[in-house]
Amino acid sequence: MSKKEVTLGIDIGGTNTKLGLVDRQGASIITDSIKTYAQEPADHFVPRLAEACFALINKVSDQVEVLAVGVGVPNGNYYHGTVEDAPNLRWGKYVPLAQMIQDAINLPVALTNDANAAAIGEKKFGVAKDFDDFVVITLGTGLGSGIYVNGSLVYGHDGFAGELGHTTVFLDGRDCPTARKGSLETYVSATGIKRTVFELLAKRIEPSVLRDYSYNMLEAKHITEAALDGDPIAIEAFDYTGRILGLKLSDAIAHTSPEAFILFGGLANAGDLILNPTKKYMEEYNLGIYKNKVKVLLSDLKGDNTAVLGASALAWDEYEKKLKK
Amino acid sequence: MSKKEVTLGIDIGGTNTKLGLVDRQGASIITDSIKTYAQEPADHFVPRLAEACFALINKVSDQVEVLAVGVGVPNGNYYHGTVEDAPNLRWGKYVPLAQMIQDAINLPVALTNDANAAAIGEKKFGVAKDFDDFVVITLGTGLGSGIYVNGSLVYGHDGFAGELGHTTVFLDGRDCPTARKGSLETYVSATGIKRTVFELLAKRIEPSVLRDYSYNMLEAKHITEAALDGDPIAIEAFDYTGRILGLKLSDAIAHTSPEAFILFGGLANAGDLILNPTKKYMEEYNLGIYKNKVKVLLSDLKGDNTAVLGASALAWDEYEKKLKK
Repeated sequence: MSKKEVTLGIDIGGTNTKLGLVDRQGASIITDSIKTYAQEPADHFVPRLAEACFALINKVSDQVEVLAVGVGVPNGNYYHGTVEDAPNLRWGKYVPLAQMIQDAINLPVALTNDANAAAIGEKKFGVAKDFDDFVVITLGTGLGSGIYVNGSLVYGHDGFAGELGHTTVFLDGRDCPTARKGSLETYVSATGIKRTVFELLAKRIEPSVLRDYSYNMLEAKHITEAALDGDPIAIEAFDYTGRILGLKLSDAIAHTSPEAFILFGGLANAGDLILNPTKKYMEEYNLGIYKNKVKVLLSDLKGDNTAVLGASALAWDEYEKKLKK
Repeated sequence: MSKKEVTLGIDIGGTNTKLGLVDRQGASIITDSIKTYAQEPADHFVPRLAEACFALINKVSDQVEVLAVGVGVPNGNYYHGTVEDAPNLRWGKYVPLAQMIQDAINLPVALTNDANAAAIGEKKFGVAKDFDDFVVITLGTGLGSGIYVNGSLVYGHDGFAGELGHTTVFLDGRDCPTARKGSLETYVSATGIKRTVFELLAKRIEPSVLRDYSYNMLEAKHITEAALDGDPIAIEAFDYTGRILGLKLSDAIAHTSPEAFILFGGLANAGDLILNPTKKYMEEYNLGIYKNKVKVLLSDLKGDNTAVLGASALAWDEYEKKLKK
């Protein structure tokens, strides 16, 4: 029997690195996870990663053939295969990660940033299959994005297009680790909604279960649970988060006029709590010519390894491009 | 002797409509202009336009062969050849203008919005010849834009991409005729800088020649002249205009990461007065990965008919696309 063709997807986060083998239809064959240890230099990380890759592949090597590798990583640059100045990885200004992984595991490696990988995953395996113009918004600790125009991911002249989390909402607004004050991700992200809750706890006088949490204890899922229980502070926090996201989606429409936005990641799990205000305010802010034609959807990729699916989709895209040549 | 091949470019504005014949190298052969009479319906306008086209072509019909027509018009839709709800033209919600002109003058007609036409002109004949990823900003009564990604103009799923003038700077900021309060064009345009001057005349106590103008009398060129003479209010108005433009160019970089911005139109004639603060603030607001690599340039298309060049460039592009098929 011939072996099943798969690609290896690797998603590198500040805390964990996930890896998995994925077939051409987006079915996950097997996955694993290692600690990233982001404080260590990249040349300590790569051998550990390679070891985990070999272990994973060996478990199913009688059934699969691994064709290519895709990597999603913060501040990953597709053109150069580098990771440049990633805020959550202490790897320094410039690491040639794709080449390092390629040398370690002897398979072709393509690399892009994590939100771009998510967008490629949605196009190949997810809800964006039939869209040529769309934007994926990843709502995690920060806010990432990947933009498709005419059926292709937009990389820009330098490989760094699609960083909507770093556009400005309020000049001189909330502090941001990147020094981009008042940026979208300081309002719309797991961290952003927590900051909004704390502002509202100070501003409002209603009782709220959220008054029992310290800033360090409070997580987005607590806010979601409170909102589902009817907590007024939590509900207002989602409304405000949706207002700011709606405003900036409306701005994004005025750039590339996508057919749809797809929300992906932790905060997107709040479902209608985030979706409804986002849609409402987006339409309110939209210019007349854009009204009532842009969809806002939730990712339908299931499971804990959706970021691995995205990285694997990148590998499939690159593999298929090479076949065409 | 064989006739010179040309296309006919038509630029429709709220006041004047300009037309001209342009050769493959972007040289203008002959131009003319008619009043638009924007209050009249489109089916009064088209016969007058057709008459002017025939008169223009007849003057040089022994020397040129007209291959195609390009039209730049506010709210023009490339996909449908329509003009939809243009604020400065009382033509209503939907006019099939390309087909109407084609029927009247019996030549193939392509149509897009005026700022997209300007971008196509810069790519074909202007300073953007060597760029695949760039954004043209037109600074007239309002602010228009045309975005190139991977060597192609971005139209978006509905043909209306690239309306940066309608992105938000300040939530609930200056009133805007489009109901998009606090939009970029209410700050950065010939009208926007005039509004800034009036704010500054109220806020500051310095003497200024601009204190002798009524709101209705004041034009952008008066502000430019005053700034060149060292008038502090005028200089501060340019600084503020450049600050807001720099902020929003920085946001636009986070969308499509262009290699360059090209400023075009009335306010761009102020040269360094607008260019220097725009560059300075754009770099100040730029995220680290984008710093010191994006150019801000002035259009080098000369003369009064640069918008006609853009419309003609669209016609050339369409003609050449058809030849390739």
